[in-house]
Amino acid sequence: MGVLEPSSVLVTGANRGLGLELVRQFLQMPKPPQMLFATCRNPSVAQDLRELAAQHSNLRILRLDVESKASIQEAFVSVKDQLKGLGLNLLINNAGRVFSSSVFSESEENMHLLYQIHVIGSLKMSQTFLPLLKKAAQTGPQDGLSCNRAAVINVSSAAGSITTLLGWEYGHILSYRCSKAALNMLTQCQGLVLKEEGILCIAIHPGWVQGEMGSSSGYMPTLKKEESVQGMLNVFSTLSEENSGGFYSWEGKVLPW
Amino acid sequence: MGVLEPSSVLVTGANRGLGLELVRQFLQMPKPPQMLFATCRNPSVAQDLRELAAQHSNLRILRLDVESKASIQEAFVSVKDQLKGLGLNLLINNAGRVFSSSVFSESEENMHLLYQIHVIGSLKMSQTFLPLLKKAAQTGPQDGLSCNRAAVINVSSAAGSITTLLGWEYGHILSYRCSKAALNMLTQCQGLVLKEEGILCIAIHPGWVQGEMGSSSGYMPTLKKEESVQGMLNVFSTLSEENSGGFYSWEGKVLPW
Repeated sequence: MGVLEPSSVLVTGANRGLGLELVRQFLQMPKPPQMLFATCRNPSVAQDLRELAAQHSNLRILRLDVESKASIQEAFVSVKDQLKGLGLNLLINNAGRVFSSSVFSESEENMHLLYQIHVIGSLKMSQTFLPLLKKAAQTGPQDGLSCNRAAVINVSSAAGSITTLLGWEYGHILSYRCSKAALNMLTQCQGLVLKEEGILCIAIHPGWVQGEMGSSSGYMPTLKKEESVQGMLNVFSTLSEENSGGFYSWEGKVLPW
Repeated sequence: MGVLEPSSVLVTGANRGLGLELVRQFLQMPKPPQMLFATCRNPSVAQDLRELAAQHSNLRILRLDVESKASIQEAFVSVKDQLKGLGLNLLINNAGRVFSSSVFSESEENMHLLYQIHVIGSLKMSQTFLPLLKKAAQTGPQDGLSCNRAAVINVSSAAGSITTLLGWEYGHILSYRCSKAALNMLTQCQGLVLKEEGILCIAIHPGWVQGEMGSSSGYMPTLKKEESVQGMLNVFSTLSEENSGGFYSWEGKVLPW
């Protein structure tokens, strides 16, 4: 398609890091979204988002904890009200965490928590927001699938590629890797069923970014969050039906499972 | 190596299906294990196992619920006592369940439950039994890795291959697929760290077996559990260091992630 110009976008985990940078760059677009929903667990302390919202009336900050079905449902009702009958074009499941761990000592609690956030959270977001995504698919541009029409982006990681095991030498991060491998499976399955509804779904690897999760491992990444997000937005602008269910890097490379 | 003859074996979920058939075929070997631990959640109703145990003094039935860390710990203490200073050669993480489900309606509860059983259960089994596996690795045959020395087998599925999506046309079974993809990631990670301890680890796809999980989907599989288990035992007999972390079918084919 070439130009990314969805009318409405929702980004989870938008209070910091890549989520916040996604919000910034969406706001700076030539044609920014008319409604940009930036969600986080605790808006009252999301200072950067609040400053942006003071300058941009199209930015709406929402409380949303992806660990809680009730919280997802509340956010859905609020987004639906604010969209006043319009659909949601682009859902970006970005919220995530990572814990240092070893295969020998990884805890049950962290295994469950990261599965809850990365996999179940993303699944419940897609399920709950499906009516708004379907509405966008039905009323948006009808020439194939695109992020301008209706799309779900699952922010994954090459650390969750069973083939690649990105960063293995810097840490096992087992709960993270297992949850992201499962998220990739979710994306593949969603890709198959959502395309029948006119909704695109892909997994993206944002690169290993400075100051982001995992940089306490001893590795000093050189990729800046601004570059990563610019790359991801470029990728989003090129996506079509043939990418459905796929796994791509921020540079647009196809990644192995 | 050619001949599978581990001195001690533990099979989880051994009260029925593939687990029970694994026990039967281990007992029928020319040189059966001196100690074969068959575990299940409720031994008091495991009639088939109890009948076998009445005929085979090397078969020990143990209560073990892989959902419970305490239960895994109790089983470990019992196995350690019965092994009287010897190690455990072969741990087969076979316990598993499946639920019919759709991508649109898959529940949080089933997502967590199958992750608990297939991924966290297998992880906690390996972590808890590690001292006995290490003992076997240190005292068993020292010519490379093998199932006669020390090995962890994670029973996975080609339904958990993101590439293959076996049986997609018969059901989304999302909680099952996501958990098995994560189990494959666990296997890859365990393969890397356990081989340093002299312990082999692989994931195996037993095939889609008659009367097993998932056959309520409308598909009528032709593979018999006897054939599947015979195939898997053949595969186990051929494994060496180069297979560490790999994913194989019951026929010995390398499967894609």
